[in-house]
Amino acid sequence: MQPNGIVTLLTDFGEEDMYAGAMKGSLLSVAPAARVVDLSHQVPPQSVRAGAFVGAAAWPYFPVGTVHIAVVDPDVGTDRPAVAVETPRGWFVGPDNGLFSALVDEVLRPAEAGQVAVPASIRAFRLENASLWRPAVSATFHGRDVFAPVAGYLAGGGSIESVGPQAATLWCLPAERARKGDGGELRSSVIYVDHFGNLISNVRVEDLPASATLTLEGRVLAEGIVRTYAEIRNVAGLIGSEGYLEIAAQRGHAGRLLGAGAGAEVIVTPV
Amino acid sequence: MQPNGIVTLLTDFGEEDMYAGAMKGSLLSVAPAARVVDLSHQVPPQSVRAGAFVGAAAWPYFPVGTVHIAVVDPDVGTDRPAVAVETPRGWFVGPDNGLFSALVDEVLRPAEAGQVAVPASIRAFRLENASLWRPAVSATFHGRDVFAPVAGYLAGGGSIESVGPQAATLWCLPAERARKGDGGELRSSVIYVDHFGNLISNVRVEDLPASATLTLEGRVLAEGIVRTYAEIRNVAGLIGSEGYLEIAAQRGHAGRLLGAGAGAEVIVTPV
Amino acid sequence: MQPNGIVTLLTDFGEEDMYAGAMKGSLLSVAPAARVVDLSHQVPPQSVRAGAFVGAAAWPYFPVGTVHIAVVDPDVGTDRPAVAVETPRGWFVGPDNGLFSALVDEVLRPAEAGQVAVPASIRAFRLENASLWRPAVSATFHGRDVFAPVAGYLAGGGSIESVGPQAATLWCLPAERARKGDGGELRSSVIYVDHFGNLISNVRVEDLPASATLTLEGRVLAEGIVRTYAEIRNVAGLIGSEGYLEIAAQRGHAGRLLGAGAGAEVIVTPV
Repeated sequence: MQPNGIVTLLTDFGEEDMYAGAMKGSLLSVAPAARVVDLSHQVPPQSVRAGAFVGAAAWPYFPVGTVHIAVVDPDVGTDRPAVAVETPRGWFVGPDNGLFSALVDEVLRPAEAGQVAVPASIRAFRLENASLWRPAVSATFHGRDVFAPVAGYLAGGGSIESVGPQAATLWCLPAERARKGDGGELRSSVIYVDHFGNLISNVRVEDLPASATLTLEGRVLAEGIVRTYAEIRNVAGLIGSEGYLEIAAQRGHAGRLLGAGAGAEVIVTPV
Repeated sequence: MQPNGIVTLLTDFGEEDMYAGAMKGSLLSVAPAARVVDLSHQVPPQSVRAGAFVGAAAWPYFPVGTVHIAVVDPDVGTDRPAVAVETPRGWFVGPDNGLFSALVDEVLRPAEAGQVAVPASIRAFRLENASLWRPAVSATFHGRDVFAPVAGYLAGGGSIESVGPQAATLWCLPAERARKGDGGELRSSVIYVDHFGNLISNVRVEDLPASATLTLEGRVLAEGIVRTYAEIRNVAGLIGSEGYLEIAAQRGHAGRLLGAGAGAEVIVTPV
Repeated sequence: MQPNGIVTLLTDFGEEDMYAGAMKGSLLSVAPAARVVDLSHQVPPQSVRAGAFVGAAAWPYFPVGTVHIAVVDPDVGTDRPAVAVETPRGWFVGPDNGLFSALVDEVLRPAEAGQVAVPASIRAFRLENASLWRPAVSATFHGRDVFAPVAGYLAGGGSIESVGPQAATLWCLPAERARKGDGGELRSSVIYVDHFGNLISNVRVEDLPASATLTLEGRVLAEGIVRTYAEIRNVAGLIGSEGYLEIAAQRGHAGRLLGAGAGAEVIVTPV
């Protein structure tokens, strides 16, 4: 796999400050020909789980050979490990705190966040070779001082073996998947609320029964599950573009309309 | 006209989620050398009219050969048509719901939103050739699954004739232009409130009388019309960069200051 | 110094409107091969001081030969001068209103905003050669009509001598630096509140005593100064990535938590 020159950025930095810009500059100083692509800088501050979710839903669409940086890093400057991961599709650089959980197949992921053996299909390396970093590394901004230079090194064709020792494990979050209840119902919760106010649950399309009743926080959604946003009269479920069941409103913000957010209970009962 | 490799994005996706990133990845997977330029992902959700306004005010400044994607698409997944348009300046890809109204000369546009015959200077094609799309097309995210791949195809030199059958009509919104009242006054309304709080009306500079009184929601603006923001003492009218009369405040948000927003009545009376 | 093709943008335009997009188009029309990099379009409207701060903290990380545009320009359309500056690291284009203060060494900067003689290490030129601008220049949007075309000209290898006459002075803001009080304490204030809610003061790390008490608006911060965000239990000071003392909260927004914002008094007392 050759790097294709594209480097994507996913952070919780926001866009009002210098942080995203300084990171881009640091990257381009190492890899002047890199093409920088913003995924998002609006991950909720310190929400590793949201960052992991957004990355998992964006990274697969990029061409082979892309380098992806992800920085949601509340433990920056401590001894939390940092990592570069090579997969058949590209490279991933950031803190080893669960952001890259989706690189590990769902069936291998733990029930609670924790260390998981790196699967055979990918390779992970700890970032320990400081000669690849900026000369002065701050205790608060490894995006600029460590991750961007390492990503630039990889985007320029550098060898991942050089970034540090190979790692046997990656820190993983649990897979986002509803569990089956005693009565055959899917017990789920809202894992993400998007910009439109859609309440995304962890019910996967492949787990949905042919016909079902949909309940949000104990309230039955009378319209059930429809196929397109345009079919919604008021509020209904539908399968979002990543294959998760979500609850959406007709040209409105379902979250505000229903007073529900991340964590709200979603139950799918076969009928 | 040769494609210049630039592909612009204008959406209502916001920047906090995976949607903009996934669309960029999908585009770059088809056209790895494309240079992606964000216009805005902050069009108000589902506001085709605002998207059309922003696009009309940004697209003309790009060099010949640019491909422009626009996605404000509340009817995604229904049988609403999608379109690729070729003009002397570039290509445009998105839903055929009025977003591209500005590609049709103002005098040809309808009094109410509706179908308009495609003018001779441009060509429009329905997106129907699914072999150019992602293999699996979701019902909710054609930006990623249809528009980005088609735009990538055009940016890579693909022929617009291949995207689907030629279309005889385009869906157009009315031209944004104040109408003349019985007393010779221009009767107008606020069509857009920008980031600074400027209230942009649909009075065009070429329709302005030499000297005029300016009224917002029945209240006369004593400072009248000035040339620069710096000349405003409190609140005044001035001609914005797109040639529309706007109402602005001295280093403040006119919309909040005056309690006015989109739809507020603006009257220009010659004196 | 050769231009490297990178052009960065720093503005208060926001991202919801046409302004950032139109400026990018105008730039790319002059320099079709330029690589446009967004620093931020979220500088608080009309806040030259915040723009200067963000630029100063992002520009140094870019490779030599980058062109930087900055537009926070409340006096656009008046006779306020505009400028292109050449430094050993790159070029800077925008209004001459203090945005580029950081290009002048701190010791040369005034106690109050004002004109400063251009240091020998850099050269400044007034933007007066209208043949480099868009043919029609609006009174309200020089980002699109003047700064972008001039930046494109420089990014394409154009000579800075062509943009207009050399300037002897630049408008500078005071350096951001705490002053020493009568009792040896550093008297400072919050100069910037970032996306995370960190309260950034103008106390520089090199001015900090070995051991100190930290007071915000008269309230002693019991945790003092720590090294990393992860060490904060509730609220503490630490040295941010640009070398300024900042006050941060444990996974929260210090500004909202403490009810403090820009201008709040920060005192560092040696112990």
